Amino acid sequence: MRLISFLRPDGTASYGTTDGKSVFDAGAELSQTYSDLRAILTAGAQSELKDRGPVLALDEVTLQSPVPNPDKILCVGLNYMSHIRESGRDKPTYPSIFTRYPSSILGHGTPLIRPKVSDRFDYEGELAVIIGKTCRHVPADAAWDVISGYSCFNDGSIRDYQVHTSQFWPGKSFEGSGSMGPWIVTPDEVGDITRQTLTTRINGNIEQQAPIDDLAITIPEIIAYLSQVLTLLPGDVIATGTPGGVGRFREPQLYLEPGMTAEIEITGVGILSNGVADEA
Amino acid sequence: MRLISFLRPDGTASYGTTDGKSVFDAGAELSQTYSDLRAILTAGAQSELKDRGPVLALDEVTLQSPVPNPDKILCVGLNYMSHIRESGRDKPTYPSIFTRYPSSILGHGTPLIRPKVSDRFDYEGELAVIIGKTCRHVPADAAWDVISGYSCFNDGSIRDYQVHTSQFWPGKSFEGSGSMGPWIVTPDEVGDITRQTLTTRINGNIEQQAPIDDLAITIPEIIAYLSQVLTLLPGDVIATGTPGGVGRFREPQLYLEPGMTAEIEITGVGILSNGVADEA
Repeated sequence: MRLISFLRPDGTASYGTTDGKSVFDAGAELSQTYSDLRAILTAGAQSELKDRGPVLALDEVTLQSPVPNPDKILCVGLNYMSHIRESGRDKPTYPSIFTRYPSSILGHGTPLIRPKVSDRFDYEGELAVIIGKTCRHVPADAAWDVISGYSCFNDGSIRDYQVHTSQFWPGKSFEGSGSMGPWIVTPDEVGDITRQTLTTRINGNIEQQAPIDDLAITIPEIIAYLSQVLTLLPGDVIATGTPGGVGRFREPQLYLEPGMTAEIEITGVGILSNGVADEA
Repeated sequence: MRLISFLRPDGTASYGTTDGKSVFDAGAELSQTYSDLRAILTAGAQSELKDRGPVLALDEVTLQSPVPNPDKILCVGLNYMSHIRESGRDKPTYPSIFTRYPSSILGHGTPLIRPKVSDRFDYEGELAVIIGKTCRHVPADAAWDVISGYSCFNDGSIRDYQVHTSQFWPGKSFEGSGSMGPWIVTPDEVGDITRQTLTTRINGNIEQQAPIDDLAITIPEIIAYLSQVLTLLPGDVIATGTPGGVGRFREPQLYLEPGMTAEIEITGVGILSNGVADEA
């Protein structure tokens, strides 16, 4: 299944599923019980969504981030060997973790916001893992069981703010600077996620491309590590890192500006596409 | 006023004010309108709390973090010149920002949790600034106006996890590893916060002591910087950094363990005291 959160043509928020052409507005029937997709994941009630609800055309709705209100968005930096090499670093022993706030993440189709204070607005194509169970101290060999699905993620980065100090956070939480979507694909549909390929296209040109199995710290290892620190909750998002090819290390450098399009494709998952607009 | 969030003797959550001996349970009268202290701050309704509600003894209630559910907890690293010097660094141009999740912050009187995975559990006494207005792009010279009050903060840190990579986050978000309280003091009561002194006592011994005006990046500068990145909301917490004297740089090193007590005092604000317990 492909799980979505969206705004109906009248602007009201709902959730449901899509086959890529039609939307099944499950929220129209279930919203009294489950207020949003995060509540569905928390209840483990995904199966109730299947083909449920009034049908809308996908192009009638405005997709939001599939989980617009996660408790946590945990991001791994420097995790593909190709990006580690271009940054001039060694293979890490531990995942490098920073956070983003939900206000920094838009849905598919909504223009990313280039902030007033910087023109160093870079893309980072990533695989997002969405947690499906409340869990702490998860052993790596049990970690696949706590995943509810996968999505494409653009960890949009304001590079000068990212390197103001050793801590990446300021460059990673500008409002509307990143995106997730278009949907969450459930693990049964995507099969072995490590056999998929991530591609980032800027204005149609391939700038990043890597197999998911190039991750230096694997998905189960990331979940095991994070769950040593705190309890992971259904709907929590883990952005697993970006491969080589970001705009900052490109020659010449390539930064996002209004009129450009950033596409993140993961085979078996989907294509997340966003334009770019200046902060109002 | 001193604003608090607490659990009543029957375990139900409420909020109100305290004079240091009695608690005025304003939530008993206002909870239909304002679900919690964050809702009070969001509505700018602090004045409705004054001397309002049934009276309880302070030692009858369990204090929570004064804002148990903030949208954001933004922490500044390396911000007192004394701590910058002990870390072997230069005076910074920009604040070094990382985040904590609310699950990492306990209230006054509740034992801090030393995690299973590490015994390098360090204290960091800090001043917390609590935001009172929804704001973005706040100029430094208007920043005092968006503050609703001050509290004491223990930015408890798991040092080995903090230095696993360049990013501090893993060492800063262990569940129950930090605390805030005992209350929020409103600015009218504390007067000029920069003239106050921060002191950390471990088992009664002074380990950190610094004037608030030793901050390298000032409170207005921190607010101006953060609000370039994203919208600050009422109830958001900004932990402004810790002075020299943390356990990791002490000789001999001093780490928290069960049976010990960590006290953070800020003159004009209060004393935040917590014991230590091992993770269950």
